[in-house]
Amino acid sequence: MKIGLIGFGKAGKAVANVILQHKDFSLEWVLRKSGTLEHSTAKEVLGISVADPAMIYSEQNTDLEELLSKNTVDAIIDFSTAESIYSYGRIVSKRNIKIISAISHYEENEKKLLKELSSDTVVFWSPNITLGVNYLLFAASLLKNIAPNVDIEVIEEHFKAKPGISGTAVKIAETLDLNTSNINSVRAGGIVGKHEVIFGFPYQTVRLVHESISREAFGNGALFVAENLDKKKNGLYNFEDILRPYFFNQS
Amino acid sequence: MKIGLIGFGKAGKAVANVILQHKDFSLEWVLRKSGTLEHSTAKEVLGISVADPAMIYSEQNTDLEELLSKNTVDAIIDFSTAESIYSYGRIVSKRNIKIISAISHYEENEKKLLKELSSDTVVFWSPNITLGVNYLLFAASLLKNIAPNVDIEVIEEHFKAKPGISGTAVKIAETLDLNTSNINSVRAGGIVGKHEVIFGFPYQTVRLVHESISREAFGNGALFVAENLDKKKNGLYNFEDILRPYFFNQS
Amino acid sequence: MKIGLIGFGKAGKAVANVILQHKDFSLEWVLRKSGTLEHSTAKEVLGISVADPAMIYSEQNTDLEELLSKNTVDAIIDFSTAESIYSYGRIVSKRNIKIISAISHYEENEKKLLKELSSDTVVFWSPNITLGVNYLLFAASLLKNIAPNVDIEVIEEHFKAKPGISGTAVKIAETLDLNTSNINSVRAGGIVGKHEVIFGFPYQTVRLVHESISREAFGNGALFVAENLDKKKNGLYNFEDILRPYFFNQS
Amino acid sequence: MKIGLIGFGKAGKAVANVILQHKDFSLEWVLRKSGTLEHSTAKEVLGISVADPAMIYSEQNTDLEELLSKNTVDAIIDFSTAESIYSYGRIVSKRNIKIISAISHYEENEKKLLKELSSDTVVFWSPNITLGVNYLLFAASLLKNIAPNVDIEVIEEHFKAKPGISGTAVKIAETLDLNTSNINSVRAGGIVGKHEVIFGFPYQTVRLVHESISREAFGNGALFVAENLDKKKNGLYNFEDILRPYFFNQS
Repeated sequence: MKIGLIGFGKAGKAVANVILQHKDFSLEWVLRKSGTLEHSTAKEVLGISVADPAMIYSEQNTDLEELLSKNTVDAIIDFSTAESIYSYGRIVSKRNIKIISAISHYEENEKKLLKELSSDTVVFWSPNITLGVNYLLFAASLLKNIAPNVDIEVIEEHFKAKPGISGTAVKIAETLDLNTSNINSVRAGGIVGKHEVIFGFPYQTVRLVHESISREAFGNGALFVAENLDKKKNGLYNFEDILRPYFFNQS
Repeated sequence: MKIGLIGFGKAGKAVANVILQHKDFSLEWVLRKSGTLEHSTAKEVLGISVADPAMIYSEQNTDLEELLSKNTVDAIIDFSTAESIYSYGRIVSKRNIKIISAISHYEENEKKLLKELSSDTVVFWSPNITLGVNYLLFAASLLKNIAPNVDIEVIEEHFKAKPGISGTAVKIAETLDLNTSNINSVRAGGIVGKHEVIFGFPYQTVRLVHESISREAFGNGALFVAENLDKKKNGLYNFEDILRPYFFNQS
Repeated sequence: MKIGLIGFGKAGKAVANVILQHKDFSLEWVLRKSGTLEHSTAKEVLGISVADPAMIYSEQNTDLEELLSKNTVDAIIDFSTAESIYSYGRIVSKRNIKIISAISHYEENEKKLLKELSSDTVVFWSPNITLGVNYLLFAASLLKNIAPNVDIEVIEEHFKAKPGISGTAVKIAETLDLNTSNINSVRAGGIVGKHEVIFGFPYQTVRLVHESISREAFGNGALFVAENLDKKKNGLYNFEDILRPYFFNQS
Repeated sequence: MKIGLIGFGKAGKAVANVILQHKDFSLEWVLRKSGTLEHSTAKEVLGISVADPAMIYSEQNTDLEELLSKNTVDAIIDFSTAESIYSYGRIVSKRNIKIISAISHYEENEKKLLKELSSDTVVFWSPNITLGVNYLLFAASLLKNIAPNVDIEVIEEHFKAKPGISGTAVKIAETLDLNTSNINSVRAGGIVGKHEVIFGFPYQTVRLVHESISREAFGNGALFVAENLDKKKNGLYNFEDILRPYFFNQS
């Protein structure tokens, strides 16, 4: 499966790292805002020897139509910023190239655009594209469904400098219908990221815990999504749509 | 819902404690092997003032047919030993009284009998009847289904004197297709019971943790089952059958 | 070692339970406010068959001087309320009977009285008399001393109904010079009591965790203190005074 | 404080990274086996702009006496292999340059040499030079001293490919006089490194947990040691010698 990656910041680099090392996927090219690494390849930058072309292009010097004409892809993976969808969205959807977006936050306008694009191609969006966090959301919401009156609290731990409540914790609270007062934010040292959902029953406790080790988890999540979108019809999908079918196959 | 309880050992007492305090259930009577507490009530023994009759009977001095004729119940909850099913099984199934068995281990003969009885009434069996452990089994097996190649390890912690690997850990290993070498048994002090399933991905970790606080969790589990068997057709059910429908209702 | 116990509420009963079962200690009697169980023994109430007399007396019907004259003790263990010290303090200190108080909170007046009494006998006071919590305070304060700039956060988890921040968490915060904003209070289900101190370094994390299983931990703590006060001179001691000598003996 | 670093593998690079970013320390040079990066600086390799010279030298092309004559240091930090001590030991000890060795394992001969060198200079050796692990060893051994009969179990978690029991877990077991059967080794995914010591009391549990985030923890540990060796007399020290004085200053 041929991938075009939009964005090459910290997350983008980690994702490129994972794609380059996965035998079923080829990183065709990277398109980014900055012109700094133009004419280099993601392989050189990351020090990985593989066959993928992985050429880096800058947005201002690149005509996307032309790039796709000479080097098309099966899917776009977007780890850049919310506005990028305006510049690549229609061009790739017309060509029926799948869109996998991991943008943290879209405004209403962008969500509307995603919906429009999804009539021409498969469009996927998840603000946190790791498998672990999405599984946790799914499993937690199942337990809440089973035991609607159980007490639920969330603990999220991150490095000292992280401001505010983590976006993932907010998403967990929304999904489980909790108040912000049920979220306990711990900020200390260099903790990469830990989310714990505590279900307190009268005589027992269930805890669902997700710990991040590195940003490469985004890459694995994006490729998991790409694999699972394989034979999907045109439409707009989220991570729960991807996980749901696994339930029915459960032995 | 009227309940007859078979067994009044440590677990049985804890279960009686929960039933007596639940407004939607009435503990009609307790039937036990030993004659020690005969003519007392479970209310007196446990020091709870409620309306439930909760009279304690001993097996040797009690004719179950007669007892049911004057004081019938909607469901039997069995926390005694494996053989009890032979003495009460046919009598209650004929009367279409539900059977909820929490016996840890049945031999093939007893399993066959359960199957037979289930043509006349609703029969439920779960070797560990807590909601938390069964949810954990269900959620863990879902994640294993999503990520079949993930590394899975189990840590179970119990009080120093507990011999062997815990039955729940063995059940987790069977469900997830693990080897005994993937189970780590910690025995220390007075730990009541903790089970942790670790899913190790390359760049993230998911942990499902269940902690027992007291045996009363069995009681809550049994009543949860009783509620969920309410409009079920005759047949043999396990805990997964009870949990599965919650998935489809998931918002 | 002969013990007189003041107080027979939930904590007092758990403490009696531990003393009765410890071969090196004998529970001579229990003195309590309420007259309800007068003329019974703590052995009967708790269902333990041992040689300890363990007779229960009520304050209003008992002359402590007289009781001590016919049945003296080596130490008083006090799990009653703050005011009790006024009624028994001088009487027992004059007889050089050790005082071990586990009262959660004393006003200045009572602290002054303890100080006075300590010129006549060994007086010990700790608001939380479990070994685990006191060790945690001690070990945490040592790490803070080693790494004064480390980020420290506290998570305390208790049953849903527990109001406010736990006294132990407040004590941890005082000891480590933290703000209340560094304490995260989780209230869910029937959690007995868990305190976690997180030390976040840039590239590593250290966690000290204490979990309560039952109130009997108070009893073990009180007897640990009693053993360690054995050859102490008259004076006022706290738990840190008891733990400090273990450091010097450390191999 | 001027530092010369021996070794520039994964750990050595992480240590250089920390030294370069610490304002109180200057990385004068790096001496390593391989000649690959000769004539580069550690600053270039790690992409850090600072004033430290940090020139990289290879052992085969470098005369250490000459290097020290033109660019002396206050301390050597050794993250290379056990044999290196033979080539640099006497040269630096003669010049009263401190030796801080983080070599995982030394044979008897090398330990004897360290002892000899320590008559001429301050010599420090710790097989695991992180502050967290050494604090954990120290604090665990204190609790074992307080409660010699408590049940102790160790859980160590690492990435799937790590063979055998972790060296740190073995060290914990030796320090606490445990059997290998008390160590539970979990291998799953990409877990960086977690060590948990569980103290199981009858009615409470204490857990000491250390989690590694990255190898840079070695660098912080080495600099912590360097600071604490500042006014020490010649002699051979280990990490416990460094931690012990903090106890006496404990408020």
